[in-house]
Amino acid sequence: MAEQYRIALDAMGGDHGLSVVVPAALEALKQYDDIALILVGDETQIQSLLAQHLAVAGNRLRIHHASQVVQMDEAPAVALKNKKDSSMRVAINLVKANEADAAVSAGNTGALMATARFVLKTLPGIDRPAICTILPSIKGHTHMLDLGANVDSEAEHLYQFALMGSELTKAIDDNPNPRVGLLNIGQEAIKGNEQVKAANALLQGSPLNYIGYVEGDDIYLGDVDVVVCDGFVGNVALKTSEGLAKMVSSHLKQEFTANLFRRFAALVALPVLKSFRRKFDPRRYNGASFLGLQGIVVKSHGGADSIAYANAIGMARTEIIKQVPQRIHKQLEHLHAQRIKA
Amino acid sequence: MAEQYRIALDAMGGDHGLSVVVPAALEALKQYDDIALILVGDETQIQSLLAQHLAVAGNRLRIHHASQVVQMDEAPAVALKNKKDSSMRVAINLVKANEADAAVSAGNTGALMATARFVLKTLPGIDRPAICTILPSIKGHTHMLDLGANVDSEAEHLYQFALMGSELTKAIDDNPNPRVGLLNIGQEAIKGNEQVKAANALLQGSPLNYIGYVEGDDIYLGDVDVVVCDGFVGNVALKTSEGLAKMVSSHLKQEFTANLFRRFAALVALPVLKSFRRKFDPRRYNGASFLGLQGIVVKSHGGADSIAYANAIGMARTEIIKQVPQRIHKQLEHLHAQRIKA
Repeated sequence: MAEQYRIALDAMGGDHGLSVVVPAALEALKQYDDIALILVGDETQIQSLLAQHLAVAGNRLRIHHASQVVQMDEAPAVALKNKKDSSMRVAINLVKANEADAAVSAGNTGALMATARFVLKTLPGIDRPAICTILPSIKGHTHMLDLGANVDSEAEHLYQFALMGSELTKAIDDNPNPRVGLLNIGQEAIKGNEQVKAANALLQGSPLNYIGYVEGDDIYLGDVDVVVCDGFVGNVALKTSEGLAKMVSSHLKQEFTANLFRRFAALVALPVLKSFRRKFDPRRYNGASFLGLQGIVVKSHGGADSIAYANAIGMARTEIIKQVPQRIHKQLEHLHAQRIKA
Repeated sequence: MAEQYRIALDAMGGDHGLSVVVPAALEALKQYDDIALILVGDETQIQSLLAQHLAVAGNRLRIHHASQVVQMDEAPAVALKNKKDSSMRVAINLVKANEADAAVSAGNTGALMATARFVLKTLPGIDRPAICTILPSIKGHTHMLDLGANVDSEAEHLYQFALMGSELTKAIDDNPNPRVGLLNIGQEAIKGNEQVKAANALLQGSPLNYIGYVEGDDIYLGDVDVVVCDGFVGNVALKTSEGLAKMVSSHLKQEFTANLFRRFAALVALPVLKSFRRKFDPRRYNGASFLGLQGIVVKSHGGADSIAYANAIGMARTEIIKQVPQRIHKQLEHLHAQRIKA
């Protein structure tokens, strides 16, 4: 039998909990025949949901009971202290105990990051883990980090994000030399804040394929593979994009249903609208990587449906196959050796 | 004769200089019968452009010669020192000398801000001027500041931005009680960086209609009138939106021209596409206000065409009519008196 990649799912996490995670797990098992999934959460509830889907736990799907749930608005420190048997915590414990190769959760981002960091620890040489996501671009896609794990990032942190993002991109895109850009507010060297200027100097001296400053629009234009920024800035950029997309689709919907002729127009334009949705469907891009940890943790969007959640499982699988944490670790050691020599 | 609002135009500024500013001026004179425009720049070139448009300087349009031009990539400090007879500088001088009621420029933003600040000075009580723009939202539009005049804004600066944005919105939207939100990365009080948390405390104690933290998506959702943020963050949000819009329209264009059927679909969908363009056309929103100065300066997008530029002239006219700097000044004095009493 071929190798099986074991992924622990925080079955209770997210806005929709089990009602999304269980069908997503069944979908992912169909999509990938080389994975085994562990549903972590309330055993009785999981059993009942599985029954509703005419499915049973078996060879590639098992249940691991956990008695608590981290709430979506719970403070990370509180979750860390009081929810030691939460589905989130137990899923990550399984990674730590090497009973799973990765964990996926749609739960509270802050609590997930705090728990992952506490249980798995950061890789040597990494001060702060970062959250990295994939966004569509005119020419393909762009990786962007950090998306909110860190605020007030120092230059050294931005440098570490660049290194991690570059390594992730090499691994999962089979791109040997990803172009790394540092997010700034102008291509001119005079602009930007102190941290960004100092990070620019560090990156210019690094072996990364650093292409210099990029601006917000470059995220979507396709001439950079990895966009590096502080978590506050990255989170605002991501949420702003979500808001703009919501406004545009709300407007299109309204316009295309305004009267009978418009409904006909929508019908005729359907292939275009479908291809549009296919390309930009945020579900395709669901699954943000927590980088810099001694283990793989993937965050699904809290509001994700089962198709989106299955994509997050797919991302975890890819990171296992490509050994992302090991690669980042190796690259860090390599750079550290170079820095000592220099 | 009715009052005339006098607006000085930096005729040489922007990516396209005279070839946009001259037709924009003629367009604006047609649109608004209560304005008089001063084209500041190379007299010979302006005359020749006017002749090409079968127009002449007259009662409502005069030329003011300036011998220099600030380049789009020139360092602000260099422009300030070496370009004392630039079209940009002279246009602002005319405001200072009370020969114009406002200045409009599509030139280098950094140089324009540095020059405006140097020549006009900030209002008493304002540490840093800010750049404020209007963005479309599901329910109407949103004002957002700062967009890049300041990086590393302290809490007190964010507080001043909130006050200025609120006053601008009251004035130009006839909105007596604008909802002011502070851009953060989560509605939970625990998130955010130190400056944002401190600004939140200041704003909670202010007489503004402060609704608390908002996130990036709220810019476009229509439940906040003024979004306040540091210039680095605001600039990234704005540019990110531009990039996303470019990607979407590039994709739509490609899809709607892919084959004959698609071209037919485009024809049928034309009313929708047109209404879409009308609502989201960035030209409609051209004209960012420099707030906090003792005078009115409006920045047109560097790449604006004449229709967009005419809108920036319209924004300057509105700010003159509504006496925006005077209102901000009065509000500052009022708050200062309150703070002393408290």
